[in-house]
Amino acid sequence: MLTLRKAVVSDVHVLKGMIDQMGEYEHLPVAITEECLQADGFGEIPQFHALIAEWLSHPVGYVLFHRCYSSFQGKGIFLEDIFVEPRSRGKGIARALLAAVAAVAVQEDCFGIVFNVLAWNIAALDFFEKLGASVSTDWKTLTLTGIALEAAIRQ
Amino acid sequence: MLTLRKAVVSDVHVLKGMIDQMGEYEHLPVAITEECLQADGFGEIPQFHALIAEWLSHPVGYVLFHRCYSSFQGKGIFLEDIFVEPRSRGKGIARALLAAVAAVAVQEDCFGIVFNVLAWNIAALDFFEKLGASVSTDWKTLTLTGIALEAAIRQ
Repeated sequence: MLTLRKAVVSDVHVLKGMIDQMGEYEHLPVAITEECLQADGFGEIPQFHALIAEWLSHPVGYVLFHRCYSSFQGKGIFLEDIFVEPRSRGKGIARALLAAVAAVAVQEDCFGIVFNVLAWNIAALDFFEKLGASVSTDWKTLTLTGIALEAAIRQ
Repeated sequence: MLTLRKAVVSDVHVLKGMIDQMGEYEHLPVAITEECLQADGFGEIPQFHALIAEWLSHPVGYVLFHRCYSSFQGKGIFLEDIFVEPRSRGKGIARALLAAVAAVAVQEDCFGIVFNVLAWNIAALDFFEKLGASVSTDWKTLTLTGIALEAAIRQ
């Protein structure tokens, strides 16, 4: 009843709809457009990979990831999003999506999967900790964007 | 007196030496080998990019980064390491390395630069915050590696 498949360019509209739902769930703004997702994910050099989970042939979740690199550990996978729509939860869909990404990581000889989870998202933290993920509280995540990014070019 | 240049395959030994110094500074183990750095950074599809900072033609620092992707914001740069050897600090070398990465981010139409800083590294946090970087305390960083990664494949 559950099928996982690689997202293709015709999935962009569905993918964007689920990204929007993810943004709502995380209370975070979604600036991305379908045009960006199409150009960045399905061009000559894809910037990300996505899998779509279908339940009875209907899309109910997705996972979006890309390669990352640790100068201490080598090749890795950064798991950007793992999402299952609320009414389809409890069916092991997120678990199946994660298994698929773990298989890619092992197959591509990566040291592991890295991901960020919102500190209030206890359900997600529980899910990953039960799988043996280690949680680091040693690091702060910073971003340099907009005017500050432009200004950083000029020394 | 300061030169920044793209790292080439003959820099692998020097790069590894500076990565080891970075690991010592951060009190973190460095598992990477020169063979890995060579294969991953200087093959057909480079997994990372690195710049070497030279002071009077002697390598004194590096920056290592790769592309990342935010499903909410699009293309980004993940800054893995920025390092200047202790005796060469205070000359604006880290600032110049960051400017070079910021220029790449703007040129490649990225939303910004993302990076993790150890919470105890006040000097680094100050450096980035003065540049207008925003610090997030909302997220926890998790990793799934080793036996847990292998086990995650089997549902």
